[in-house]
Amino acid sequence: MSNEPTELAGKKGKWPLDDIVGQLRAARAEWRSHTGRLRESGGRDLPSRHAMGHIIDSLISALFPMRLGPADLRAENEDFYVGYTLDSALNMLLEQARLELKYTARLDERRAGQDLDARAERIVRDFAMILPDLRYLLDTDVTAAYNGDPAARSMDEVLLCYPGILAIIYHRMAHRLYKSGLPLLARISSEIAHSVTGIDIHPGAQIGHSFFIDHGTGVVIGETAIIGNYVRIYQAVTLGAKRFEVDESGNLQKGQARHPIVEDDVVIYAGATILGRIVIGKGSTIGGNVWLTRSVAPGTNVTQANAQNVPAHPERER
Amino acid sequence: MSNEPTELAGKKGKWPLDDIVGQLRAARAEWRSHTGRLRESGGRDLPSRHAMGHIIDSLISALFPMRLGPADLRAENEDFYVGYTLDSALNMLLEQARLELKYTARLDERRAGQDLDARAERIVRDFAMILPDLRYLLDTDVTAAYNGDPAARSMDEVLLCYPGILAIIYHRMAHRLYKSGLPLLARISSEIAHSVTGIDIHPGAQIGHSFFIDHGTGVVIGETAIIGNYVRIYQAVTLGAKRFEVDESGNLQKGQARHPIVEDDVVIYAGATILGRIVIGKGSTIGGNVWLTRSVAPGTNVTQANAQNVPAHPERER
Amino acid sequence: MSNEPTELAGKKGKWPLDDIVGQLRAARAEWRSHTGRLRESGGRDLPSRHAMGHIIDSLISALFPMRLGPADLRAENEDFYVGYTLDSALNMLLEQARLELKYTARLDERRAGQDLDARAERIVRDFAMILPDLRYLLDTDVTAAYNGDPAARSMDEVLLCYPGILAIIYHRMAHRLYKSGLPLLARISSEIAHSVTGIDIHPGAQIGHSFFIDHGTGVVIGETAIIGNYVRIYQAVTLGAKRFEVDESGNLQKGQARHPIVEDDVVIYAGATILGRIVIGKGSTIGGNVWLTRSVAPGTNVTQANAQNVPAHPERER
Amino acid sequence: MSNEPTELAGKKGKWPLDDIVGQLRAARAEWRSHTGRLRESGGRDLPSRHAMGHIIDSLISALFPMRLGPADLRAENEDFYVGYTLDSALNMLLEQARLELKYTARLDERRAGQDLDARAERIVRDFAMILPDLRYLLDTDVTAAYNGDPAARSMDEVLLCYPGILAIIYHRMAHRLYKSGLPLLARISSEIAHSVTGIDIHPGAQIGHSFFIDHGTGVVIGETAIIGNYVRIYQAVTLGAKRFEVDESGNLQKGQARHPIVEDDVVIYAGATILGRIVIGKGSTIGGNVWLTRSVAPGTNVTQANAQNVPAHPERER
Amino acid sequence: MSNEPTELAGKKGKWPLDDIVGQLRAARAEWRSHTGRLRESGGRDLPSRHAMGHIIDSLISALFPMRLGPADLRAENEDFYVGYTLDSALNMLLEQARLELKYTARLDERRAGQDLDARAERIVRDFAMILPDLRYLLDTDVTAAYNGDPAARSMDEVLLCYPGILAIIYHRMAHRLYKSGLPLLARISSEIAHSVTGIDIHPGAQIGHSFFIDHGTGVVIGETAIIGNYVRIYQAVTLGAKRFEVDESGNLQKGQARHPIVEDDVVIYAGATILGRIVIGKGSTIGGNVWLTRSVAPGTNVTQANAQNVPAHPERER
Amino acid sequence: MSNEPTELAGKKGKWPLDDIVGQLRAARAEWRSHTGRLRESGGRDLPSRHAMGHIIDSLISALFPMRLGPADLRAENEDFYVGYTLDSALNMLLEQARLELKYTARLDERRAGQDLDARAERIVRDFAMILPDLRYLLDTDVTAAYNGDPAARSMDEVLLCYPGILAIIYHRMAHRLYKSGLPLLARISSEIAHSVTGIDIHPGAQIGHSFFIDHGTGVVIGETAIIGNYVRIYQAVTLGAKRFEVDESGNLQKGQARHPIVEDDVVIYAGATILGRIVIGKGSTIGGNVWLTRSVAPGTNVTQANAQNVPAHPERER
Repeated sequence: MSNEPTELAGKKGKWPLDDIVGQLRAARAEWRSHTGRLRESGGRDLPSRHAMGHIIDSLISALFPMRLGPADLRAENEDFYVGYTLDSALNMLLEQARLELKYTARLDERRAGQDLDARAERIVRDFAMILPDLRYLLDTDVTAAYNGDPAARSMDEVLLCYPGILAIIYHRMAHRLYKSGLPLLARISSEIAHSVTGIDIHPGAQIGHSFFIDHGTGVVIGETAIIGNYVRIYQAVTLGAKRFEVDESGNLQKGQARHPIVEDDVVIYAGATILGRIVIGKGSTIGGNVWLTRSVAPGTNVTQANAQNVPAHPERER
Repeated sequence: MSNEPTELAGKKGKWPLDDIVGQLRAARAEWRSHTGRLRESGGRDLPSRHAMGHIIDSLISALFPMRLGPADLRAENEDFYVGYTLDSALNMLLEQARLELKYTARLDERRAGQDLDARAERIVRDFAMILPDLRYLLDTDVTAAYNGDPAARSMDEVLLCYPGILAIIYHRMAHRLYKSGLPLLARISSEIAHSVTGIDIHPGAQIGHSFFIDHGTGVVIGETAIIGNYVRIYQAVTLGAKRFEVDESGNLQKGQARHPIVEDDVVIYAGATILGRIVIGKGSTIGGNVWLTRSVAPGTNVTQANAQNVPAHPERER
Repeated sequence: MSNEPTELAGKKGKWPLDDIVGQLRAARAEWRSHTGRLRESGGRDLPSRHAMGHIIDSLISALFPMRLGPADLRAENEDFYVGYTLDSALNMLLEQARLELKYTARLDERRAGQDLDARAERIVRDFAMILPDLRYLLDTDVTAAYNGDPAARSMDEVLLCYPGILAIIYHRMAHRLYKSGLPLLARISSEIAHSVTGIDIHPGAQIGHSFFIDHGTGVVIGETAIIGNYVRIYQAVTLGAKRFEVDESGNLQKGQARHPIVEDDVVIYAGATILGRIVIGKGSTIGGNVWLTRSVAPGTNVTQANAQNVPAHPERER
Repeated sequence: MSNEPTELAGKKGKWPLDDIVGQLRAARAEWRSHTGRLRESGGRDLPSRHAMGHIIDSLISALFPMRLGPADLRAENEDFYVGYTLDSALNMLLEQARLELKYTARLDERRAGQDLDARAERIVRDFAMILPDLRYLLDTDVTAAYNGDPAARSMDEVLLCYPGILAIIYHRMAHRLYKSGLPLLARISSEIAHSVTGIDIHPGAQIGHSFFIDHGTGVVIGETAIIGNYVRIYQAVTLGAKRFEVDESGNLQKGQARHPIVEDDVVIYAGATILGRIVIGKGSTIGGNVWLTRSVAPGTNVTQANAQNVPAHPERER
Repeated sequence: MSNEPTELAGKKGKWPLDDIVGQLRAARAEWRSHTGRLRESGGRDLPSRHAMGHIIDSLISALFPMRLGPADLRAENEDFYVGYTLDSALNMLLEQARLELKYTARLDERRAGQDLDARAERIVRDFAMILPDLRYLLDTDVTAAYNGDPAARSMDEVLLCYPGILAIIYHRMAHRLYKSGLPLLARISSEIAHSVTGIDIHPGAQIGHSFFIDHGTGVVIGETAIIGNYVRIYQAVTLGAKRFEVDESGNLQKGQARHPIVEDDVVIYAGATILGRIVIGKGSTIGGNVWLTRSVAPGTNVTQANAQNVPAHPERER
Repeated sequence: MSNEPTELAGKKGKWPLDDIVGQLRAARAEWRSHTGRLRESGGRDLPSRHAMGHIIDSLISALFPMRLGPADLRAENEDFYVGYTLDSALNMLLEQARLELKYTARLDERRAGQDLDARAERIVRDFAMILPDLRYLLDTDVTAAYNGDPAARSMDEVLLCYPGILAIIYHRMAHRLYKSGLPLLARISSEIAHSVTGIDIHPGAQIGHSFFIDHGTGVVIGETAIIGNYVRIYQAVTLGAKRFEVDESGNLQKGQARHPIVEDDVVIYAGATILGRIVIGKGSTIGGNVWLTRSVAPGTNVTQANAQNVPAHPERER
């Protein structure tokens, strides 16, 4: 493309812009041909991280209006605020849900014939209707954080300051999206929380009530982890996979249960690494920096010192 | 609430908005009755995270105008900028301080009769007057970072880039707020720094001059930790509590000294976990990933290999 | 400075603003005299973190327009968008490059006579011309992430969500700036990525193609590390320095090779700490939480359990 | 104020900033001593034009949510939006009302003892409660515009596009503020409308229902004008004062009735100038560019040609 | 709607918010029943003034990139900028066009069956394709302004500063939209120009090349006006309708030709009012403040003094 | 330019974007060849309207900090605010001044050799140093407005609300820029005021102290007008040129004195049109809508009725 044909012919740009643009186009073309994206829709019809951040923020404001909502909120206008904010956020979510469903349908021809708009609307309606339950659930998390941290002075401090609370709020919404068939929106949401809090919970993880993560930086909870009620976790804890199953042709097997099951009332101290589809029995305590790849019985107290000697409970592995 | 009484009667919304709003109201009412919030003020009279972020940013600009202030600053207008920015930030801080004091007074009836406005003003004036000392202190931290990192090329690079510097600037201000009776503002400030840097220092921690945290992600320093001068800390170090004291009725005892004392000239390498009210003697070196729950004498060199054999100094525990 | 000479004489401000401003000025003057900054330019002529963030974001949009560019992009206007965005970003980068070169020249008189504008332009032109290659390189990273994570459902999910991908995009640009003689711009860029992802890669590190960091929080990769192709790394892995060399007068020796060399096809699991200029041989696997300060032969499988027994290969250390 | 005492002494700024600041301070001091502002409150406690613009915009959105409200409004969330927006705007208005009342009290010592907060709240409550009536009134104006302009294609076009409609919406609110004892807020509001539309209606003017201004640029309607129902006015029409009454000492007499009374069903064409406390009788038509300073009987048709011959009706002057 | 059922029962809000919201709902319901809006779509599916402002601004930037485009534009990236900006703006316009066509179809059932999306796309494509011609036309206007104003120092000053130029750029685009069947978008565009410049040109007006309005405040040009080439107009000139035709039932007849025809090379000085479907003959000059309702022959010089004596040319009236 | 060479070949865009971009390029090339712009600098090196708006706003804040400055201003930080804001604004003005001088030098080769940076700095320093005098001058205008309008309740209302005050503040700064050799910055500034207030004062006009424009919409004051002290003007007044002088070859003669001289204490009522280099004698009153093209003696009272009979004073014409 020659920008200024004649009069600027003698003037050379600082860098060969046209050439670079052309080479970048070639690079994209090659990528697309590699990855079979010849069926590109012609537009960037993908969910938006920016939009999801705004949606989740709005839902948080609607769930905890007096603590995390706008500064001018008062008892008189609280419900009006909640109603409008909620409805706006849900409509934006509906738009993002449509984008994900259409995106998936482009990749997977079997879904091409479905009524994606109706499906998106059904998903978002279901999501909307569980929000009150979700608020009750989150209240148990706030209570757990207050009870679990001697430095906490009030429930409000917990709600305003604790990254672990922010992470669980995001997670409980992301998990719901994940289960509804919107894994991309779910994952985008959980990565926003990861960036802000340093806590990385895969949206597939199932987490019971009264869950508390203190400090939190470096926590990783994998896709198929299952966590009971009243569980407490500290920074840098990993609930990860031990190894990845590979199929006959050497490809990773996706979707297998491969992360730990943590039963009720378990406490896991900072830096502990728990790998594989093992079971941490009810009421156990896992000490800091412990490396654990075997199931332990309920009520076990595992420390770095005794970690090798704790009897494994293979029958509990699932 | 029926929005459009007659003409839209046939039209059903996408989700039962009125019902959801009502259920959320019920959830909030239940929470408030649980937590005894019947004395709610009718408004969202809480300090604001957004406001505190803006205040601390402005104070940082006023403390380091030529490095962290606006791009158009010059020697001639530096003082004007400092004076205006400082005064604006202090007035905003005064407003937030009032909000915290009033909030506390609502929770604690003994404080209801106090002159909270006068108290807020006194606190902020005292805060303002120590800012020059705080700048001298922070200069020692910048010097320590430059001296401590072979990759640092200039003091300015340290100030512009190092997350550890940002964390200590935030902490020194948050600590002052904490000591002045504004623990909520303090905590909000330190959580902003945590989110940006991955370094989690409780505002209660006491830290001497010439302090340096390198890399920093995952560092946790607890509320009652005491750190001497010329201390250097690497990423993922925890200065935490060993266990939480529980009173007779099983509730956590809040406010007890429960985190380590680190004396002057100590270096703690990445991933070390130091728990409990123990003392790390002057000039000691704690190796990477060491797990330490006993006091060590001055000049001790603890590594993963010798960690079990280092003699404990229980008389130093406080 | 007396603000309101007569009529407001009786009115005392809330805090002694003039005094505080004066003391802050004195603190700055003392710092400048300490650090020999008498040759200050009179203005804040420093590169800007805010500007670098905007530049890198724009370059990312130009490199991956259909995935990370604006929502309204379509096949028809893609090249127009790329061309304009690229050129704008490069011109902004040119401005920042000039600021860094001038800043360096102020500190180092030997450079004072050079034609800094021409040098800045040459550097940015060279940077511009490698962008297509950089895109090919990044495509290998996206592919590696997709292949390496069983939870990944599509290449697009990888590009939209994975913090490790964001970190490597930032790093590959920062590394190029670092090699071009713009270490401050490079460092600013890598710290932006660190803040957003929790992954701290020094811009000096050399990294081969098809590199993947999963989860990533707490990863630290040092300035002189060298990483081969097809390497996979998990959260909280450190590739650090074992000790810092000190010269005769006790000052740190800067610029020495002091970080590990990781050969092709190596996997390093979460929390492993690898220190010193050692070599991890081709195809080795380093287990979680392993502490390693000695070279290992190609194909070695190091775990916490066998870490002490793995034979060291000192001849491989460089 | 000497900014950089020693080290920069040799460097002269581009302009003598300190001197200019000092001279501006002296200029302000002189103005304040002239105007008796020795009792300055020490702060800029004045209503804000920016705030009033936002308030009126919000009220307009609440009054006409489906036409002038946000793009995402739907029948289901309309009332929620109205309730929240209204309450927010009213609370902001309350704050501005307090500022005006306090400002007035500073100027007028007789008001110093009053309970200004209670008075502000009473005024804003009354304002809030007439908003539904105001909406009915504005609907008559929209209808009048649609009926009066052959170019109008729909009521919605009128509401979205016509500057005359915007001006009357602003006016009806500003007039209410004016009558409530908030003339400064009223005036600020009407000047915002003036700036946007070129239509200058003093908030004191009394205007009946079904009022229509077409095109509007240059229309001026004075403080004591009284306008009936179904009146139609074109661009550049002035309803002004003929002369200003001066008291014995030569000062203007403020507050006298000095602008025209326009009865029902009058049409005034572009550029007509009508001055003084005269009466334009019901159903009259005043032609373009007519200059009129005498009352005319009901049903009179005044044109430039016959303006001198139309019989005056002095008995109608008030 | 009772916001806080029990615990806040004793607390009365500052104003009866629920009542006011209810009354406003009733007012809207009454309006809708009056105006037959029972077929409301349930959403605010109307074109947006904000969006149109952004679209026109972008188109102006694309038409005059080096004068009215972004500050960082250079010869090398000019075409890239134009291409991307243009395409974005056209896509946004397409969205607004759809909204107008759907809105019209809701009001007019005959259009309900049409393929509105295809029609919108066709209209916008045609609009896009005349943009180069429109640029040539606007260049004639810039030249006319430069030639016509002795105070103009350069073409660039004209383009950067003259409100008359801004008004004609907006008009030429609005007129095209008007002719394409998008009168609402057209009107919104022309009212934006009116608000900014004080110049009110109905988008229906037909205007030849080399048109210049100087100063411009108060100029009004009606829907059916026809203006030739090389016409010059000053502030406060009206090209209006003399009277409105009324049909048998007393309703205004919409769409009739009722505004003047101004032939080539005519100059109309400030404040002149020209009304009705009359013809101002080629090369005539109309003096300031002249009131003219009769056609005049080519070459006529009309002044206030001779206005009554200039022979009318009724045969030229159309 | 072919965007997506092969894989999207079958997909036709909505409009032929490449063709339109090419035609627009051709249109620009033709314009540039017409207007001799072959010497284009390659970039858009022109002053910016946006920047000038920001600069003037900042200067206004610095001149009237307690009335038109930020809401948080207090006596204690007033001077700090003024100093910083002023210096920032002056530095931005310096940048714009450089752009205008370079632009002019490109058009006029005689200026090419000058030291434009030094000249820009000299101009802005002189501008800075007259700001205190300018503030005194503007105080006379505020006083004149208060004294001249019976509806004005306080000086503060005048400063906060009156468009005439805003127009004169802008004008006095623009006039200074105009006299300093920056006519383009001056004109941009005055057009911003024109857009906001509807008052169009050419920056060349000379205006004495205590000047008041009431209402103001439609006022036009030409480039060579000279206005004395204590002059009062109402809306839609024109001080214009009678005719334009043409040189032998038919081109307009630029720069000739061609607008009225208005002596001290003159009042000009709404809609009066005063044309040509005539003199309105001291203390005269010009009535509304008067059309005047001859000088009048001091103390003359001109009305529409007597306008023809007032004796002309040709000897006063200059």
